Amino acid sequence: MSLDRRSLRWNGWGLVDAPDLLGDKAETFWAWAGRSFGMDPLPRTPAKELSEIVLPAWRLASRYAEDLAGIVGTERIKSDVYERAWHARGRSYHDLLLLRAGLIDAAPDVVVYPENEGQVLELVRFAARENIALVPFGGGSSVVGGVTALALAGQAGVITVDMTLMDQLLDIDEEALVARIQPGMYGPALEEALQARGFTLGHYPQSFEYSTLGGWIAARSAGHQSNKYGKAEEWFASARLATPHGIWITEGFPGSAAGPQLRNLVPGSEGTLGIITEATVRIHRVPEMKDYRGYLFPSFEAGVAATREMMQSEIPTAMIRLSDLTETFFYNALDTGGAGADSPAVFCVMLVGLEGGVSTVVTAREQTKAVIQKHGGFPIGETVGKTWYMGRFFTPYLRDPLLDRGLGVDTLETAARWTDLLPLYRATIAAMERALEENAPTPGLRNVVMAHVSHSYRDGASLYFTFVFARALDREVEQWLAVKRAASEAIIANGGTISHHHGIGMDHLPWLAREKGPFNMDLLRAVKHVADPEGVLNPGKLFE
Amino acid sequence: MSLDRRSLRWNGWGLVDAPDLLGDKAETFWAWAGRSFGMDPLPRTPAKELSEIVLPAWRLASRYAEDLAGIVGTERIKSDVYERAWHARGRSYHDLLLLRAGLIDAAPDVVVYPENEGQVLELVRFAARENIALVPFGGGSSVVGGVTALALAGQAGVITVDMTLMDQLLDIDEEALVARIQPGMYGPALEEALQARGFTLGHYPQSFEYSTLGGWIAARSAGHQSNKYGKAEEWFASARLATPHGIWITEGFPGSAAGPQLRNLVPGSEGTLGIITEATVRIHRVPEMKDYRGYLFPSFEAGVAATREMMQSEIPTAMIRLSDLTETFFYNALDTGGAGADSPAVFCVMLVGLEGGVSTVVTAREQTKAVIQKHGGFPIGETVGKTWYMGRFFTPYLRDPLLDRGLGVDTLETAARWTDLLPLYRATIAAMERALEENAPTPGLRNVVMAHVSHSYRDGASLYFTFVFARALDREVEQWLAVKRAASEAIIANGGTISHHHGIGMDHLPWLAREKGPFNMDLLRAVKHVADPEGVLNPGKLFE
Repeated sequence: MSLDRRSLRWNGWGLVDAPDLLGDKAETFWAWAGRSFGMDPLPRTPAKELSEIVLPAWRLASRYAEDLAGIVGTERIKSDVYERAWHARGRSYHDLLLLRAGLIDAAPDVVVYPENEGQVLELVRFAARENIALVPFGGGSSVVGGVTALALAGQAGVITVDMTLMDQLLDIDEEALVARIQPGMYGPALEEALQARGFTLGHYPQSFEYSTLGGWIAARSAGHQSNKYGKAEEWFASARLATPHGIWITEGFPGSAAGPQLRNLVPGSEGTLGIITEATVRIHRVPEMKDYRGYLFPSFEAGVAATREMMQSEIPTAMIRLSDLTETFFYNALDTGGAGADSPAVFCVMLVGLEGGVSTVVTAREQTKAVIQKHGGFPIGETVGKTWYMGRFFTPYLRDPLLDRGLGVDTLETAARWTDLLPLYRATIAAMERALEENAPTPGLRNVVMAHVSHSYRDGASLYFTFVFARALDREVEQWLAVKRAASEAIIANGGTISHHHGIGMDHLPWLAREKGPFNMDLLRAVKHVADPEGVLNPGKLFE
Repeated sequence: MSLDRRSLRWNGWGLVDAPDLLGDKAETFWAWAGRSFGMDPLPRTPAKELSEIVLPAWRLASRYAEDLAGIVGTERIKSDVYERAWHARGRSYHDLLLLRAGLIDAAPDVVVYPENEGQVLELVRFAARENIALVPFGGGSSVVGGVTALALAGQAGVITVDMTLMDQLLDIDEEALVARIQPGMYGPALEEALQARGFTLGHYPQSFEYSTLGGWIAARSAGHQSNKYGKAEEWFASARLATPHGIWITEGFPGSAAGPQLRNLVPGSEGTLGIITEATVRIHRVPEMKDYRGYLFPSFEAGVAATREMMQSEIPTAMIRLSDLTETFFYNALDTGGAGADSPAVFCVMLVGLEGGVSTVVTAREQTKAVIQKHGGFPIGETVGKTWYMGRFFTPYLRDPLLDRGLGVDTLETAARWTDLLPLYRATIAAMERALEENAPTPGLRNVVMAHVSHSYRDGASLYFTFVFARALDREVEQWLAVKRAASEAIIANGGTISHHHGIGMDHLPWLAREKGPFNMDLLRAVKHVADPEGVLNPGKLFE
């Protein structure tokens, strides 16, 4: 069952009526935050109400209304202010700055909700024929501008294709452990349907509650437990996609040497090569046992070394999440409401999650403990692991109240070989701190730049950076962009990819071509030209 | 150190002076084979000597000799009869029929041995400029026509680019467990160099001794232990390729969401998108322990069920190799020289290989035993495993003496979901038996069609078929083609891929487009057009 758009914030994260994440710690936390960021008391910077905001004029000629009604039916076409605003952008910090300020330069002319593949195919063909931009939309949780309702110059308008009515689990092949699922299924509904039959996809990205299967695949998403269940491109088996020239059905073999497997072009295509209408994914039986527990390390470096050894000795972990000193400090402050958070952390916390059969989990627990101990780490028990597990989808809710109080928070991420990881970490933190300092509203204000290792491989790992800062209210976007640029330059210069699991969208475009080089970009453009020669599929994303 | 082409058979498998595989069991084995195949005694059908054979005339204009000498140096250009014949084709059954009969319709005009990337790039540019077909060549062990020295109509000639002088291990990143290696390194040299420093790629295809890294990647090869070390596309991290328009450097991150990863187009490209000049691959530390042992199952079906359960419960096996009844029977006959091989097998043999740390191997051994027992299997000890391990690269040597005695042998393979595996197995065996019967030299002659499960996944497995038969000496190619066609049709009709790890080459072209469909083929052609618009890279392979 899909989520009613009215129940979800059009300019923030998650449910309109979500309870305050901080609960009864709110007052002390905000007092601490005010002291910490040097703005005591914190200013009040509420978002504009939708009623105060003027949306961009309809660009799409009204004569198209009849065509659209013929395809999806009148009741599946929405063009009211709420739907247009809700679908105007994704949910990045940059998006929220603009939405909250009412600076909506791009909004879909209409939002359509197709109910089957035939309708999607007709929509795509119609858009190609009439030169109308189509923005495929699932949960809309992109944090890189992946669903901005953008039309290129010369295009006749923008239609957002909300896929969330195509939200059925179609079939489970219990023998081959694969499931056919429609792309508009939200995370919780998908897991509920699979788990009711004893299975799981095991894909729990931070956005899990408000993102969909199609989006996960299109953006090469990674779930918290990707060490076990794989990143989207790993559990993705095959797909059907609607393109202007028909349904693209990809290969889907367990293994094949029948030439390059073109299905590998789907993960990361971000809606620019076709709209996913169905995906087949590799599933697991619900694990017998889950074991999440915490460890402390005397340094981030020691924790990284332990993470590397666990991966390279192929201990079957589901998750290894290693916070640096600053992040350990900050999450502790969040947890205590700032109480006792006046001295810096001296340990880094690592959470290790194990999932699987009892004997596998028990063996892996002993193996992880041995490696951790060897690198100077020591156990702090299950409570911290369980607490994280219970609250793991709540942290994105913190962004809106921060934004209401003159503060800003954003995240960015990368992956690199182990050899490059620590130099990249140090360079990126330093670059972000410098950019934040140079762009602070008042000189000398404190900022927080922190990171954790979130997904690991035998050859490297992903680093996830979070920065919290006092907003320069007169130049919010410029301030953010300065930090984003500094971080991205440091990442590219130090052997990292511009994104490990957020995607490219519009925000990472300036670095994509540098990362890939002209040859790879030529290949990508050639593929685009086959799939979408008219350039109507999610224009302005992935391709400049 | 590369293999001297003079030490290797130009029209057969492996070393010229390889000892007789059958040793002192030869006489009894051939007597048994004669009885079994209904040709007692077996006829003598020796191959033609090279001196009896006329190679096709040189097509390449002599004026190019100077250009080539300018690129690679005179001593790196070979155009003698032995080099031309040796490089004329790969080593498929079809190739050997033609080579042994002296029917060499295609041979390279010259063979060049570049020594560095710069030379390869110059060769590729030269070929594109002058419209000359270039055939990249490693060990030349293709069994699908992947290195046939073919020029398309209008092309000025064929140059085979033998890459085996580019055979150095360039660098090991011990922290990230990746190695940079030149493509012309043969299997044994590669493992020797890695293992000298404590590492292994763990990639041991059947052709290991006479195939190279570049070929493994280009053809999406699978090693015996692919359950642990992965198929080529899994351990392949990144590459540099020479194309007419410069060096193509692929992405190489541990994980990335920066759009589709174009590096996925390299495995399976079969030399048609560029010549690999360097590859970065994911390596392992040499395992502490290896454990290979045998089990018997009352039926192939029971063994398949056990294999599936081992994979789906994620027991870390390196190899599960399950022979059907016929294959168990045939290998037993080979082993005993036919003694006692008059009644059919009543059990299927399964070999399970485990590699890794001691505790992992010991745990996995208990886990595999439990699953096997549950499915009616029982252990037969380590000897069968060790015997297989010691002799695992010898069986291809059996083909030449079979060919000398009026017999034929070929293999083909596929992969499919577990759900499709047994129906596909039965249909393919039946189709091959029917085709062999219909194309037997004398009605009623016995044939052997057998199969094993060779590589497994959570969602499916690969099936490897071998057929041994009395040759129809007056229509050898037609006989083979009839069986090949029948098998391929059965595979495609039953949800299999036309190849799991042999590749497409020329032999599988008729089925490639049907497997992939027009959309995927359009994408592939668009990619080809970017990489090689002149169509000089390995023409006639992968693309029609």
